Amino acid sequence: MLEIQAEPLSARAFAAFGDVIETAEHAARWINAGSCERFDDLALIDVAAHGGRPLISIFRALPRSLPFRIEQLERHPLSSQAFFPLDRRPFLVVVAAGDGTPQATHVRAFLSSGSQGVNYRRNTWHHELLAIGARSEFLVIDRGGPGENCELITVDGSALCISAV
Amino acid sequence: MLEIQAEPLSARAFAAFGDVIETAEHAARWINAGSCERFDDLALIDVAAHGGRPLISIFRALPRSLPFRIEQLERHPLSSQAFFPLDRRPFLVVVAAGDGTPQATHVRAFLSSGSQGVNYRRNTWHHELLAIGARSEFLVIDRGGPGENCELITVDGSALCISAV
Repeated sequence: MLEIQAEPLSARAFAAFGDVIETAEHAARWINAGSCERFDDLALIDVAAHGGRPLISIFRALPRSLPFRIEQLERHPLSSQAFFPLDRRPFLVVVAAGDGTPQATHVRAFLSSGSQGVNYRRNTWHHELLAIGARSEFLVIDRGGPGENCELITVDGSALCISAV
Repeated sequence: MLEIQAEPLSARAFAAFGDVIETAEHAARWINAGSCERFDDLALIDVAAHGGRPLISIFRALPRSLPFRIEQLERHPLSSQAFFPLDRRPFLVVVAAGDGTPQATHVRAFLSSGSQGVNYRRNTWHHELLAIGARSEFLVIDRGGPGENCELITVDGSALCISAV
């Protein structure tokens, strides 16, 4: 059994997989006559290929129990996919490096603080949404349009496991 | 002094101005092997004109005191603009009907429940973000790209006022 420990989510640690959507470590500018800070342009929304358009949805996810076994990953060849938590509740982000068939040893897990969203870069292997603790809602920005935009793969060896976070 | 009472925000009441982004009154489909409900495609993101691209930002707004006087409205001729609250806290949505110069009597105010976002349709006159109660964060989806995308106008008569909500 290969156990993966979740790392704290940060822009630096996640850079190979996409963007962390957060205010931390971003400069803001004051707008609206000083009533509002704008943290601008926090993720690369890449949805226009092959006639795509941005899609806004809400996902309501049931919580998972830990340890949780990783068995399948997915990726979107035509678009990025962004998730932002709406309940300030931590959630798990599981990804695998590389374009090829993901190996168990390439899988990494990150723990969002609950005030951090993620935006998976196009073609990045990732696990489906992993809420923890309680039922949780997320605002999701991905792609609508023609074409098949989801590949699924079974991770080699079913021995991966995310343990305590 | 013209006093405007804020109405409850609903898709029906807001239809002339844009979309209400919410799960209520939308059917979901189960995805991810029954672990997640997807409320799909909740707003028309209209940002592609003149080389535009979708922009994701976080706004952190200071709260306003009520009664609050409306003095200026804005609109975006090249794009929609969506706001979703990240603190489950109600906020005010102020809009004016029509394409022409907004009249005081055309202004309407809505109160989001805190689990409802809004997406202003392109060219819809609206007030800048109006947080209430406490400092509040919002995920914002609008447009990056060339061109001037903000018009401002002073509302005729400075006598508009949103009173209790």
